Amino acid sequence: MRETEILKIIRTRIAGAGDDAAIFPFRDTNLILTTDMLHRTSDFPSGTTPYTIGWRSVAVSLSDLAAMGARPLGVLLALGDPDLKEEFVRELLNGAIACCEEAGTLLVGGDLDRHQELTLVGMGIGEATQPVLRKGAQLGDLVCVTGELGRTQAALHLFAAGSLKRANALFCFSPRVAWGCKLAGLATSMIDISDGLAHSLYLLARESMVGYAIKESSFPVISDLHEVLAPAEHSEALLFGGEDYELLFTLPERLISTIDKEVCYSVIGKVTEGGVLLDGNELPNRGYEH
Amino acid sequence: MRETEILKIIRTRIAGAGDDAAIFPFRDTNLILTTDMLHRTSDFPSGTTPYTIGWRSVAVSLSDLAAMGARPLGVLLALGDPDLKEEFVRELLNGAIACCEEAGTLLVGGDLDRHQELTLVGMGIGEATQPVLRKGAQLGDLVCVTGELGRTQAALHLFAAGSLKRANALFCFSPRVAWGCKLAGLATSMIDISDGLAHSLYLLARESMVGYAIKESSFPVISDLHEVLAPAEHSEALLFGGEDYELLFTLPERLISTIDKEVCYSVIGKVTEGGVLLDGNELPNRGYEH
Repeated sequence: MRETEILKIIRTRIAGAGDDAAIFPFRDTNLILTTDMLHRTSDFPSGTTPYTIGWRSVAVSLSDLAAMGARPLGVLLALGDPDLKEEFVRELLNGAIACCEEAGTLLVGGDLDRHQELTLVGMGIGEATQPVLRKGAQLGDLVCVTGELGRTQAALHLFAAGSLKRANALFCFSPRVAWGCKLAGLATSMIDISDGLAHSLYLLARESMVGYAIKESSFPVISDLHEVLAPAEHSEALLFGGEDYELLFTLPERLISTIDKEVCYSVIGKVTEGGVLLDGNELPNRGYEH
Repeated sequence: MRETEILKIIRTRIAGAGDDAAIFPFRDTNLILTTDMLHRTSDFPSGTTPYTIGWRSVAVSLSDLAAMGARPLGVLLALGDPDLKEEFVRELLNGAIACCEEAGTLLVGGDLDRHQELTLVGMGIGEATQPVLRKGAQLGDLVCVTGELGRTQAALHLFAAGSLKRANALFCFSPRVAWGCKLAGLATSMIDISDGLAHSLYLLARESMVGYAIKESSFPVISDLHEVLAPAEHSEALLFGGEDYELLFTLPERLISTIDKEVCYSVIGKVTEGGVLLDGNELPNRGYEH
């Protein structure tokens, strides 16, 4: 059975399913909770260092918090591994802790277990007085994306080519938590693009019941991608490659001047009445299935 | 490398490591966070139903919250499975949701992934204005345990004997969250005995820097154990079997009359100056390693 079909079942059973993270009101704010499972075979190419593995294991959950405009409060990490070698665990923790620190939060706990395959499950908890949902985009809003696209695709090509140092550096992406917090109260909808830009647009469209007109020439492309991929291959990588952890958000045009100058973003299109169009043509709803 | 040695490294790196769950102050209370990873091979004997698997996957994290005297706020569940068959996922969710409901909380989210081996990671979040730590037992305190001992050992024997219905029923233990909350503010230290009674006593002893004198005749033994194990085998099962999820706590004798009548517990010993003694003899520090 496809994960997307299973997710449909889960959506009918779990309170709050369907966003990047779960929300529940607590005291005068909302707690935001998220979890992500990563594995050796599907998530870490040969050559990924233990430090990078630790970094990404917490970064993916921090990215989910960022996509809700939440301030992270803490991260847990459960680790299953066949060997549990000391040096490996130390380096993995170094990466996880460094990523938490960069995001202004702490690794507060976890669990440890023997496992046939290296498996990491990160859990992030945050708070947001005004969480940003996938639902909320309004007709005429600008469609924006933070940072640069193509980072993970560039890293994967560098892993395959044996440029491991550069590949690992690119793979240790910065979760956009500070930017996400600054966008809370301004952005009308938000998601991280871990499922690929195209599929993420469709997810936002479904929740907000709108369409999008996107211009490919406006995509902010990471320079590394130019080096590893021929121009003809860029489009596929940027739209369907997946596992980039930038924030895709919508914003009323009148608010553009109020965005904090520290938030790095590009306008890539507009919210329309229906359909997801790239330069006037319907964009296929293909994504990256984890 | 042994998990216990790795845990020593982690204790030096992670804020709050060393208790059943992580604690951090938030607003006028404390948030309590915990995570546990379970696998097909090590945690679910042949004959375990999907419902039971779902139940236990969240129950172990709820038990960690109970051991801190925390009120659960929500649970997340990450599921990795090779097949992701619809009926299996449905039944697993039924079990997880039923356990959350029994504990007065909700399954609020999760993650789903393909995995070579069935892997479940539950995460619990709770709050406690007065969390109960492993540290805090005072000389002369009573040593108490909730409910009955031997439930999981009885279940494992029933699984092996093919009495699957009874085995599954026993395996779906009730996390002691209501009792844990009622003990907060009274118990001076607390832990759940998922690592076995003997090892849990040593963990409490280390954190509280005290000893314990325990009487085996005072153990509350579940009736099912009498049926499946000869009397000569009880001691081993009760002390070292592990994976029971009762609460082990210490309590000043003068407070015993203030414990809510709904809390079911037995006094099994006293806090002493040093050493963990069972009927006057040193108890081996053997436990259940997950």
